[in-house]
Amino acid sequence: MTSGFAAALGAWQERPGPLARSLSDAVREAVVDGRLPAGTRLPSERELARTLEISRGTVVTALTLLRDDGWLHTRHGSGSVVRLPARLTERTTPWSLDRGGAGDAVLDLTLAVTAAPHEAYLAALGRAAARSAVLLVDSGVATAGLPRLRELLADRYTRAGLPTRPEQILVTSGAQAALTLLLDHLHTDRRAPVAVENPTYPGALALLRRRRSRLLPVPVTAADGWDTEHLAAAPRDRRPRLAYLIPDFHNPTGAHMTRPVRAETARLAHRHGTTLLVDETMRDLDLRIPPGTEPYLAGPGVIQIGSTSKTLWSGLRVGWIRATAELVRELCRNPLQAQLSPPPLEQLIAEELFGDGLDEILADRRARLRAQRDHLARLLAGTGWTYTLPDGGLSLWLRLDSDASALAARAADHGLALTPGPHFAPDRATLTHHLRLPFTATPEVLTRAVDLLRLTARL
Amino acid sequence: MTSGFAAALGAWQERPGPLARSLSDAVREAVVDGRLPAGTRLPSERELARTLEISRGTVVTALTLLRDDGWLHTRHGSGSVVRLPARLTERTTPWSLDRGGAGDAVLDLTLAVTAAPHEAYLAALGRAAARSAVLLVDSGVATAGLPRLRELLADRYTRAGLPTRPEQILVTSGAQAALTLLLDHLHTDRRAPVAVENPTYPGALALLRRRRSRLLPVPVTAADGWDTEHLAAAPRDRRPRLAYLIPDFHNPTGAHMTRPVRAETARLAHRHGTTLLVDETMRDLDLRIPPGTEPYLAGPGVIQIGSTSKTLWSGLRVGWIRATAELVRELCRNPLQAQLSPPPLEQLIAEELFGDGLDEILADRRARLRAQRDHLARLLAGTGWTYTLPDGGLSLWLRLDSDASALAARAADHGLALTPGPHFAPDRATLTHHLRLPFTATPEVLTRAVDLLRLTARL
Repeated sequence: MTSGFAAALGAWQERPGPLARSLSDAVREAVVDGRLPAGTRLPSERELARTLEISRGTVVTALTLLRDDGWLHTRHGSGSVVRLPARLTERTTPWSLDRGGAGDAVLDLTLAVTAAPHEAYLAALGRAAARSAVLLVDSGVATAGLPRLRELLADRYTRAGLPTRPEQILVTSGAQAALTLLLDHLHTDRRAPVAVENPTYPGALALLRRRRSRLLPVPVTAADGWDTEHLAAAPRDRRPRLAYLIPDFHNPTGAHMTRPVRAETARLAHRHGTTLLVDETMRDLDLRIPPGTEPYLAGPGVIQIGSTSKTLWSGLRVGWIRATAELVRELCRNPLQAQLSPPPLEQLIAEELFGDGLDEILADRRARLRAQRDHLARLLAGTGWTYTLPDGGLSLWLRLDSDASALAARAADHGLALTPGPHFAPDRATLTHHLRLPFTATPEVLTRAVDLLRLTARL
Repeated sequence: MTSGFAAALGAWQERPGPLARSLSDAVREAVVDGRLPAGTRLPSERELARTLEISRGTVVTALTLLRDDGWLHTRHGSGSVVRLPARLTERTTPWSLDRGGAGDAVLDLTLAVTAAPHEAYLAALGRAAARSAVLLVDSGVATAGLPRLRELLADRYTRAGLPTRPEQILVTSGAQAALTLLLDHLHTDRRAPVAVENPTYPGALALLRRRRSRLLPVPVTAADGWDTEHLAAAPRDRRPRLAYLIPDFHNPTGAHMTRPVRAETARLAHRHGTTLLVDETMRDLDLRIPPGTEPYLAGPGVIQIGSTSKTLWSGLRVGWIRATAELVRELCRNPLQAQLSPPPLEQLIAEELFGDGLDEILADRRARLRAQRDHLARLLAGTGWTYTLPDGGLSLWLRLDSDASALAARAADHGLALTPGPHFAPDRATLTHHLRLPFTATPEVLTRAVDLLRLTARL
C-alpha cells in the first residue's frame, strides 16, 4: 500500500515550489486521474514521512492543505481517506471545462453540457456491476436495447401522456446516433430537401451537410418562437420528406413550441407526407415553476429522439428513438444500427438511473440550472445586449450590437471560448450578431466569463 | 434481505412441477438476469422455509439441486452464496447462444463470437469503477480516445514490431464502427470500385452495399490463400481507391497471408494509390504452437482496424484505427466520429484489460479454441465434406457436396441455425456449396450440432 501510494504520486519532488504544496498537488492530481481512487485510506503521517523521505512536518502541512481544500476526509481514530471535493462532484458543469486557474484562464463556453450526477452515477454503476452477470452470459451482440430499459423508456412516455410500447423504442448511443441512423434510413432521396429550424443544433447541420442534403430553413426566434407562416408553407410548397425540429427548449434559442403550433405542425406534416424527426434532448430541462404541460409533438409520421446526454451526462452514451414498432424493426436491419447501439453495460447503468431516483436527480439539476440562468441574466444587465430569458434548456441566445464572430475571436485571445451565431445557421453566414451562452457553468465561472466578455467588448 | 430474496424470485410457486424444482429454477433465473447478484448470501434454511411458506425439506432439496448444479457455494459455518457455475463463466461461447435444452434445442452456429472472459472482465470493471472519478469530472464528450488507452494500443503495435505513436490510434466502438468511419471519410468517389476478398465478412459487405459501392472481388480459398494474380491485377487494371482485406485468419476461410504476399500487396497498393483497410480482428486468435511470426500488413497507405469483439467479448465495444496521426486528426473532424466513439467507461475497462493479464486471457482462449477446433474436425471425419484446418480464427470453412442454402434451410427445421456460403459472397449468389462452422461453441454443443447436421444431410 505505502509503496503503491508513493508510485501513484510519480516524481512529485521534482515540481517547483514548496515541498508540502508539491505533495498536495500530486495527491490531488492522482485522485483526479484515478491513480489514487477516491476512498483510498492514506498511510499514517509517520509512515508517509518515512516512505516519501520527507519530514513529518511537511507531511502534516500537505495533508492540511488537502483537508482544507476538501480532498481529504479525516475521521478520528480511523485515518484519512482521499475523496473528491463537493465542488467537483456537485455541480452542473464538468470540472474539466474550467479547471484553468484565474491567472491563465481558458474558459470554455462552447459546450452546453452538464456534469455527471456524480453520486447517482457511481451508485448506478455499482448496482449495474452487481447485476452484470446477466450481460456476461450473453453474446454482447447489438440488439434493439435491453428489454427492461426499453420498458422503462416506454413507461416514461406513457406516464407523460404518450402511450408507448417497449417495441416502439430503439436504444441508441445518443441523440446524434439516433439521427445518423434515421437519416441513413429515411433520407434516401438526396434531392428532396430537409426542413430544419434556423438557427438549429450544429451537430444536426454537420450530419446533413455531410450527406449533401438540401436544407430548407424555418425561422425560429427566442421571442416569438416558430415562424408559423414558414412552418405552414414549407411542407406545402417544397415537399420536404423530412424535417428536424427541437420543439422543447430549442437549441440555441430556448424557444418552446406552443400547444396549438405543435398540433398544427403535426397535422401539416402528416397531410403533406413529411416525416418529423423531433429532438427531445432538452425536454426534461424545463426550468419553469411548476414545469409546463405542453404535450409531446406527436402523431402519425412523427419520430421522437431522446438522450441522456443533456439531462445526465454526455459520457453516458444512451439515447433512443421512439417510432412505430415496424420502423424500429426495420432500423434494426440497417447495417449502421449495431455500431450506433450502446454497449450493454452502459444500458444497464441507464436502467439503474431510469429506475427510482431519476426525477430527484432532474429536480436537483433544474434548480441549479435555474439559479445559474438567473445569475447569467443578472450579469448581463446593463450590457445593452438583448435576450429572451429561456424557459428551459442549457443556454441563452444573446443578441449583440456588433459582429459576434469578431467578438468571439477577440474573446479567445482573452482565454474565453464562445460559439457565435453563424455556427447555428443552416447557411453558415447569417445570425452574425448572435452568441450562444450556456449557463451550465458554475456561477463563479459565469461571472468570470461575463467579465471577460465585457472586457473584450470594451463595455 | 429475506423479503428482498422472496421478491427476486417472483411468482415461483405458480410454476408447474415439483416445488423444490420450481424454487431452484427460479433462483437460477434470478441469478442469471441479475435480480439476485452472484455473491448474494442466502438466508438460513429455516428462515427460507418461513419466508417462502414451504417446508424445510423442500428448501433443503432445492438448495441441493442448486449446489449440485454449481449455482450455490456453501462454506461450513458461513452459509450459502449464489454464484454462476463454472460452465457458464469459463467457456468460449456465450451461454445465451445454446441455453436451449437438448429436447427443443435451438443451436445457433451463425455467430462466431466468444463469451466474455467472466472473471477478468468483472475484475477490470471493478478497477475501472474505482477509477471512474477521472471520467466523471470530465465533460464526457467524445475524443480520439482516453490517452492511456491510446498509449496501451500503440505500445502493443510497437512491441509486436510495428512502431506506433499514441497519436496514430483512434479509439472506436468496434471494427465495424472503424470501417463505417473510414468508408465515410475515404470512399467519397462512389464510382471508384472497392476491392474485397471473395468470400469476406458479411458485415463489411452490408456496409459497402448500403453505400452502393462497386465491389471488385479478389478470390481467397482456405487451401491456397489469396489469388496473387488477381491481387496483382486488381489495383493495376481497375484502380480501386480502397481495398478491405483480412490477412490474419481470414473470415470465413481461416486463410493466413504469407510474408511475401503481405509485402507484395502493400507494395502494389502503394504503387497504384489504393488505400488498404486491413481488418486485424482475428490476428490475436493464432492457434498455432508456437504462434506464427508473420509481420503486420503495413506500409504507406495501409490503415489497420482492430477490435476486442472477437478476442474478448462483443459486448465490450472497443475497437481502433491505426493510421497516420494526420488522418486520425482528420477523422476526428468527421461528424460521424463522436457517434462511433465508445463511452469513456467502456474505454476505462479496456485500459484495465489491456494492462497486465491480457496475454494470459488470450492464451487461455486460444487453448480452448484450439481444442474445440480439433473436436469439430474429429466430428466431421467420414462426412465426405472437405475443409482445410484453419491456423487461427473462430470458424471452419466447409465445402459440402450439395447446396449449402438448402441444407441450412432443412437444418433450421431441426433447430440448428447455420450461415451458408452465399452470405459471404460479394455477389450474394456464388459459394453455394460452402458453410461456415464456428468452433466457438463448447465441445458438447459442437457434438450436438454436427449430429443434427449429419441427420439433416442424411449422412
